[in-house]
Amino acid sequence: MTPGLGTRTAVQLIETFRTPEAVFRASRSELEAAGISSGLAQSIASGCAFDDAVTQQQKLAEAGAVAIPFTDPRYPSRLKDIFDPPPLLFARGNVDLLQELAIGIVGTRRPTAYGTTVAARLAKDLACAGLTIASGMARGIDTAAHRAALEVGRGSGGGTIAVFGCGVDEVYPSENRKLAEQIAKDGLIVSEFPMATPPYPQNFPVRNRVISGMSVGVLVVEGGQYSGSAITAKLAAEQNREVFAVPGNITSKMSWGPNLLIKQGAKLVQEWNDVVVELKADDRRRLAAQCRNRLNLKGECDGESKDPAQSSLAYGPEGASRTVLQHLKPDVPVTLDYLVETLHGTSPSEIIAALFELELAGLVRQLPGKSFIKVWAD
Amino acid sequence: MTPGLGTRTAVQLIETFRTPEAVFRASRSELEAAGISSGLAQSIASGCAFDDAVTQQQKLAEAGAVAIPFTDPRYPSRLKDIFDPPPLLFARGNVDLLQELAIGIVGTRRPTAYGTTVAARLAKDLACAGLTIASGMARGIDTAAHRAALEVGRGSGGGTIAVFGCGVDEVYPSENRKLAEQIAKDGLIVSEFPMATPPYPQNFPVRNRVISGMSVGVLVVEGGQYSGSAITAKLAAEQNREVFAVPGNITSKMSWGPNLLIKQGAKLVQEWNDVVVELKADDRRRLAAQCRNRLNLKGECDGESKDPAQSSLAYGPEGASRTVLQHLKPDVPVTLDYLVETLHGTSPSEIIAALFELELAGLVRQLPGKSFIKVWAD
Repeated sequence: MTPGLGTRTAVQLIETFRTPEAVFRASRSELEAAGISSGLAQSIASGCAFDDAVTQQQKLAEAGAVAIPFTDPRYPSRLKDIFDPPPLLFARGNVDLLQELAIGIVGTRRPTAYGTTVAARLAKDLACAGLTIASGMARGIDTAAHRAALEVGRGSGGGTIAVFGCGVDEVYPSENRKLAEQIAKDGLIVSEFPMATPPYPQNFPVRNRVISGMSVGVLVVEGGQYSGSAITAKLAAEQNREVFAVPGNITSKMSWGPNLLIKQGAKLVQEWNDVVVELKADDRRRLAAQCRNRLNLKGECDGESKDPAQSSLAYGPEGASRTVLQHLKPDVPVTLDYLVETLHGTSPSEIIAALFELELAGLVRQLPGKSFIKVWAD
Repeated sequence: MTPGLGTRTAVQLIETFRTPEAVFRASRSELEAAGISSGLAQSIASGCAFDDAVTQQQKLAEAGAVAIPFTDPRYPSRLKDIFDPPPLLFARGNVDLLQELAIGIVGTRRPTAYGTTVAARLAKDLACAGLTIASGMARGIDTAAHRAALEVGRGSGGGTIAVFGCGVDEVYPSENRKLAEQIAKDGLIVSEFPMATPPYPQNFPVRNRVISGMSVGVLVVEGGQYSGSAITAKLAAEQNREVFAVPGNITSKMSWGPNLLIKQGAKLVQEWNDVVVELKADDRRRLAAQCRNRLNLKGECDGESKDPAQSSLAYGPEGASRTVLQHLKPDVPVTLDYLVETLHGTSPSEIIAALFELELAGLVRQLPGKSFIKVWAD
């Protein structure tokens, strides 16, 4: 709330004085000794920002939100590594998600049908793989990604984080009011902007560095050559984050951006696993372990299996995974067709979901020609 | 025509004895001393293959074709570098094309509308850039590539070479009879298979190594994951040729192959220049020089300008290039919109064609936002 105090200086002050409280307890000369201008030192030492801060506290309480300073253990550790981390994150929802592995999914606000479909499919598969889907809740690709992640459900994989360019108690665009409520309930909304901040246009590029900063990488689905998602990809690369892009027809204007990113070195993504294989070995192991745990607990991963008609079947998804695994061998590849013909009690879509889940858990490996082998004895 | 004599051994014999004639003049013991089996030495020394060779000579004369041995100066030098160059090439058409820079364009026999469109557009643009389009005259992508190259016309850029998996006097598939005649007239048909050889299925993978072997690189437009074009790409990489691929929607089965190739390191191609920039500097200079020569001669490059309605205009394409160049500056970028508004005597499509041509000739450079600068004073 201190005018003229940027994120870099704010974090430097916190690092010098150890806590935000200590910064405000410091005298003007102590502040100046820390290397800031006398005007700024006066502004901080005056305590003028405190009135605003009290208002903020009230708004936080009203919205059921929390403020997480840079020094808080809940502050996402990955975000601390970037050049200009926000000194304070406002958060509304499940703050545990800040500790999860996140992948940013971004793209144009005016996608084609292809872009929307692909954003939803990849967001769903990556959420099933245990990744948390971070995006900006803008129209188009962002919205499709959040929605798909919410459909998977928190118990079955990663959640979703919406990074706002306004206060976490605001909604932009207004058509996403219902989605925002659902994210606040089942996912997490974060923002570095104080409560009640309107969605100023200049906030959005600033916000984008938080999406990439808190993520292991950013996946661009559709966008023009000079689009916002191209800028986010550039920021991500500067932050040393992996840049992923979904290719598309060269005749589609909306695929021009991602195709160009691939030409410049972004990883081409045809399916969820193209993202997962690029993660650090530790992160991949963490996802596989999470997935194995879920299999033992309930084994639900694919959104389709939530269909009431399906869950009333004698074979639940957990059973399907187990049954499929029993029919696979560690040495001889078994084809999908063979499984579909053999497992009469399990529907083809359940078999596909089970194979997907088992692959995620590192228990099954897919070979060319839609055939599968067991990775180790269960 | 000697049974049991493979391409590797044939070329080794020619290299040992200097000419094919000398191989046939050699005694059985001289041949055995060159390291081939006694059976093969007997077969060559017997002269039994000569009767077949006489028949071949007759067929060559009837078809207006020629046989170009490995030792002939007309034999494409690039093809000599591969592991197993054909000892003899049968050729029907303009053999000068064997000296030109060629790019292979290959893809599925069952393309989508997108694949056909893109193959034609890139073949046309690359032919305009002075590259000769090599392909296999198969249904689908190959046919689209040859056709587009023929439309450009030899005087306006590169030609086209069809590499057959049968004799150059055969046609496969039969629906391409007319196309084959046109290629024999305005382009070139080559084959390593003797005259009258039927299109045996096993010939086609063998033929593919000649397409890539005589080219600077291979561009894959559409194809499944385990398609023939994926095999051609693999061969091209083994021959140390550049592999290019056109990306496509990940929901399209026919783009799965090219997308996978890009993931494995193939260069992504959005437009003709993505191929040209990867060429060796010498080859690029050669293309630019050719294009500048053509500009002085006639300046026609874009197929559109062949439209009779257009060529009857006062401003021919040559005039268009000259006029556009006069309106460009070496320091201030000029937008396409400005040129269209200013040059009343020249149609927008002529201006675009002229800019394209000037860019190819290295006289103009395109900048972001469809604006252009002159590269050097003319």
